[in-house]
Amino acid sequence: MSGGAHLPRGLHLLADFHGVDAERLTDPLAIETLLREAARAAGATPVGSNFHPFGPGLGVTGVLLLQESHISIHTWPEHGFAAVDVFMCGGARPERAVDVIEAGLCPTSFSCRDMLRGQLPPSIVSPSP
Amino acid sequence: MSGGAHLPRGLHLLADFHGVDAERLTDPLAIETLLREAARAAGATPVGSNFHPFGPGLGVTGVLLLQESHISIHTWPEHGFAAVDVFMCGGARPERAVDVIEAGLCPTSFSCRDMLRGQLPPSIVSPSP
Repeated sequence: MSGGAHLPRGLHLLADFHGVDAERLTDPLAIETLLREAARAAGATPVGSNFHPFGPGLGVTGVLLLQESHISIHTWPEHGFAAVDVFMCGGARPERAVDVIEAGLCPTSFSCRDMLRGQLPPSIVSPSP
Repeated sequence: MSGGAHLPRGLHLLADFHGVDAERLTDPLAIETLLREAARAAGATPVGSNFHPFGPGLGVTGVLLLQESHISIHTWPEHGFAAVDVFMCGGARPERAVDVIEAGLCPTSFSCRDMLRGQLPPSIVSPSP
C-alpha cells in the first residue's frame, strides 16, 4: 500500500492476451467487473477505478486502483487483443488475478512476464561508509 | 489507442525512483500535474484520471489514462520511493514522459526497464498452413 502498511516491494505482471472474442473486449462494465473479481481473488482492495470506452464496438482502456497498487487493461477488439498489467505489493497474489482475467477473456494464447519492483539499487543496498 | 487508430504494439517502461524527497510524493494534485506534463511531452492524449491519496503525509496511487494506454504512479514518501509505469502505443514517446517525471521527482537514483507489448506470439506470427 502506497504510503501505508506495505513495503514498496512488489511484483508487476505484464500479461498479453491474444485471440480473444471481440465481444469480451468492448463492454467497460463487464471489464471492470472482471478486474474487480481478479482483485478479490488476489486478496487486494480497490480504492478507485476509471474505465474509458472508445465507442460502440471499440476498445476499452481502464484501471482499477488498489491499496496494493493497480490492475490496468487496454483492449483492441479488432485485433482480439488485451494488454493487462497487475502490480501488487504486500501479501496480495497478483498471479491469481491474472488467472481470473485469463478465465474471463478465454484467449487462444497469452504470455505473462513478471518484474520485481521497488528493489533497492546497489548504491543504496551497499552504501559507502 | 485501444480499439482505434493504433496497432496494439507498444512500449511499456517500468521506472523505479529512489531517494525522492517525501514532500514530492504526497500531493495528489502536484503528482497529477506532473503526469500530465509527462504525457504532453510524450505526445500522448489523456482520456481520464484517478489519483487516490492515502492521507496527509502518506503516499498517492494514481493513473492517467491515455488514448495511447496509461501512466501510473505509486508513491511511498516514508521510503522516498515512487514506482511509475508508462505504457504507450502508436507514435507517442514514453521515454520522454519518464524524463519529465525524473526531472519532477529529482531522485538520487532510478532504474528503468522497457518491455515490448502486443507482439504476436509465435503461433500467430507463423501459423500452420
